[in-house]
Amino acid sequence: MGAMLDAAGLQRVLDEAPFHRWLGVRVERVGDDAIELSVPWREEIVANPRARSVHGGVLAALLDLAADQAIAAKLGHALPTIDLRADFHRPALPGRLKARGEVIKLGRTVVTADARVFDEAGALVASGRAVYLNQQGGGT
Amino acid sequence: MGAMLDAAGLQRVLDEAPFHRWLGVRVERVGDDAIELSVPWREEIVANPRARSVHGGVLAALLDLAADQAIAAKLGHALPTIDLRADFHRPALPGRLKARGEVIKLGRTVVTADARVFDEAGALVASGRAVYLNQQGGGT
Amino acid sequence: MGAMLDAAGLQRVLDEAPFHRWLGVRVERVGDDAIELSVPWREEIVANPRARSVHGGVLAALLDLAADQAIAAKLGHALPTIDLRADFHRPALPGRLKARGEVIKLGRTVVTADARVFDEAGALVASGRAVYLNQQGGGT
Amino acid sequence: MGAMLDAAGLQRVLDEAPFHRWLGVRVERVGDDAIELSVPWREEIVANPRARSVHGGVLAALLDLAADQAIAAKLGHALPTIDLRADFHRPALPGRLKARGEVIKLGRTVVTADARVFDEAGALVASGRAVYLNQQGGGT
Repeated sequence: MGAMLDAAGLQRVLDEAPFHRWLGVRVERVGDDAIELSVPWREEIVANPRARSVHGGVLAALLDLAADQAIAAKLGHALPTIDLRADFHRPALPGRLKARGEVIKLGRTVVTADARVFDEAGALVASGRAVYLNQQGGGT
Repeated sequence: MGAMLDAAGLQRVLDEAPFHRWLGVRVERVGDDAIELSVPWREEIVANPRARSVHGGVLAALLDLAADQAIAAKLGHALPTIDLRADFHRPALPGRLKARGEVIKLGRTVVTADARVFDEAGALVASGRAVYLNQQGGGT
Repeated sequence: MGAMLDAAGLQRVLDEAPFHRWLGVRVERVGDDAIELSVPWREEIVANPRARSVHGGVLAALLDLAADQAIAAKLGHALPTIDLRADFHRPALPGRLKARGEVIKLGRTVVTADARVFDEAGALVASGRAVYLNQQGGGT
Repeated sequence: MGAMLDAAGLQRVLDEAPFHRWLGVRVERVGDDAIELSVPWREEIVANPRARSVHGGVLAALLDLAADQAIAAKLGHALPTIDLRADFHRPALPGRLKARGEVIKLGRTVVTADARVFDEAGALVASGRAVYLNQQGGGT
């Protein structure tokens, strides 16, 4: 199943959420298999002021929204998250973050999607999975 | 094992993180079994502008930080998150949010902690678990 | 919401599954809040032949089935698992294992339940959470 | 980092666990990126006697052991599981099951690995992730 929204369309859906606007999430690419987003650096997302590493909760939010927007690209709208797993692999240091979301299974009632977050140098800083409730049934 | 920090001490540790200051996290109670935090409402945490419900990523961040601060109350400092699971039970609507963190097992290398987030009316909106890396070994 | 099945009724539901019969799962108690099961020791569940510790996969299975049977006690039947999280706290050594399951939220489409596994001495060896799909809608 | 064990070597490590012998786990392939295992059908792994579908706990066990054996192929030995996430995508019906394990990050203290289980027709029935404690530090 290909994408229903292009990058501009996905950006409009994404920008409806005030939290996404605060983060400054930008759609970089909408492909058939995956979508790519990026967020700029800002000091308010830091956890450790000495290392200046990004808060794990912000990385978890990026994983959730990248996975959900991968679904939105296919269905035309995001879905409510049932649950999320986030794994933290290394500290994310100052610089633009990239997030990649991918739909694993588009079920009629439950949709499974994966996401990965990379730092500016391309290193994997976090990865995870979430499941979403597809009440409208736009799956297979 | 009781708490090492009192509410004022935990607030100081918590306030070191710019993301916690942006959220406005306040320590409400430090008990032997659990800690309680709260965050005020602000429009930037909204996901759905019609329902005005809180973004799941923000709830995931609250679960992570409440679990980690429950550890900080016992050890005097927070620990790096290995992984996080977050379950979303109902939309969190405008109002002050409360988060409760509790240490489940304080191991020498891995610490397990649970957290729950409640809305202003006391309804459970999200719950979860995270494991943390205890490299300094201040456990049992 | 109280239990719909008593211990004998839950044992009948549980015994329908050949895997439960192979494990020898026995219903110990059906309460309003939680159910308790137990399984006898058998050598085929061992992972490490020197330590004779139980395989993590068997503990994960116990968590899943204890959580699901807590739901069965309320609804009269088990539900299909959407996803499972299992945390392993210490090796489970030879002896009867106890598992406790508890429903956290009985939603109309998704049911969340927790479980814990204890060794014969009462120490917590594993704990976890699973979500289940409630297609028949017997929740609130 | 390539594999340290070949298929015969991994089969020896795997066969040390009585639970693996009971399941009849066979090493099919050891690659640089991933390993593949298979298990034969047996009636004792069934959950639902009418559908004859495999118990979710058995699929969770397969995910855990496939992820752990992907690590064993690299390090020469399996590691203790910290926690596991398992997602169930469709019922696994009678037939040989295939499991694929892959190391995502070989850290010095924590190793992250993914696994997928497929039915005889090649359909994805379950997928998941686990983290393992690398106390000997054989990572990077």
